[in-house]
Amino acid sequence: MAGLFISFEGIDGSGKSTQAKQLARALEQAGHEVVLTREPGGSQGAEEIRSLVLEGDPDRWSAETELLLFTAARRDHLERLIHPALAADKIVICDRFADSTRIYQGTRSGDLRNMVDQLHDLVIGREPDLTFLIDMDPDTGLSRAKGRGGTEERFEDFGADLQHKMRAGFLELAQQFSDRIRVIDGTRDIDTVAADVLRIAREAVGVAKSDA
Amino acid sequence: MAGLFISFEGIDGSGKSTQAKQLARALEQAGHEVVLTREPGGSQGAEEIRSLVLEGDPDRWSAETELLLFTAARRDHLERLIHPALAADKIVICDRFADSTRIYQGTRSGDLRNMVDQLHDLVIGREPDLTFLIDMDPDTGLSRAKGRGGTEERFEDFGADLQHKMRAGFLELAQQFSDRIRVIDGTRDIDTVAADVLRIAREAVGVAKSDA
Repeated sequence: MAGLFISFEGIDGSGKSTQAKQLARALEQAGHEVVLTREPGGSQGAEEIRSLVLEGDPDRWSAETELLLFTAARRDHLERLIHPALAADKIVICDRFADSTRIYQGTRSGDLRNMVDQLHDLVIGREPDLTFLIDMDPDTGLSRAKGRGGTEERFEDFGADLQHKMRAGFLELAQQFSDRIRVIDGTRDIDTVAADVLRIAREAVGVAKSDA
Repeated sequence: MAGLFISFEGIDGSGKSTQAKQLARALEQAGHEVVLTREPGGSQGAEEIRSLVLEGDPDRWSAETELLLFTAARRDHLERLIHPALAADKIVICDRFADSTRIYQGTRSGDLRNMVDQLHDLVIGREPDLTFLIDMDPDTGLSRAKGRGGTEERFEDFGADLQHKMRAGFLELAQQFSDRIRVIDGTRDIDTVAADVLRIAREAVGVAKSDA
């Protein structure tokens, strides 16, 4: 196999980061080499770009400039961490990837979705082999995110209306990319969700191995 | 008129920065409102991106990531400084703009020129109204640049072969964009070059005013 690239997506507070960690641990315990990473960021250069974007006045960058910076960070993350890990037959688990950009940057300014897609085709190209969309009612998700007291307040402070819009956007993506996105009901208890995720991931690992 | 956007281009040591400053001063003395700026950088955000790109190990970014970062910087520069100044009927004089990206990023990795052009069309769009290409034999230019002891050694350390290639690239651009790029012989003394540049710029200012 040439590795397996798995991403986790979902609105804030959906529990996707917890699930990404759980899956990484479970696959490692099963003997696989796993690289757990996240976006924005994930490589040294990408983390520096992430800091530049997230620090300071929320209006310091336009939506378009922010999109370009996040795309630069993703390119660095792919080149320096994801591609080499996949080439070494590892399983890469990434907390957020291009689907988040499609929703967060695309939804905030409706007319940016086209630019998001064109930029992706031009300089990223790659999609995950398998994406878990941890789906949840935004009211539940938002209260969970606030409870965590996360540091990404710019992104978690969108409010309930926008979170509802973004949930709908993620569910549309799941239809658009039905070959790779699996929708997981994230309202159930963590271990039940994790068991679902692990079962599907194991199937994908098995397929990837039999393809090798 | 809706302002006038003038750029200066050329290889390192061609004297383009000196000429940009001279033209700004001459047009100001003639009563025009002039904004003198430069790339990469030029706005607060763009300067921070510039620092991120130019600091540290020369290999810290791939050519593609560097291109994305410079494009993000240009987008910020356009939004925050160039467009507002032009909208206020000012003359913007910019030391390097998109032509430098076409040559520096496009020439260093030949296959990047296509990406440079697509990115430009997607997120920049705008060309200067008038571009001065200060043309000079690279051997003369290189010795001038080294004499100045500039800080951008990453860019000025390309060596003579690459500088010859870049000069040829700029001259090709002048043919491709013959409606806006004027080739100026930069080997003559500074005041003679400046007089040439000022004469052409005044014509362009006159045309822009009569169009208003």
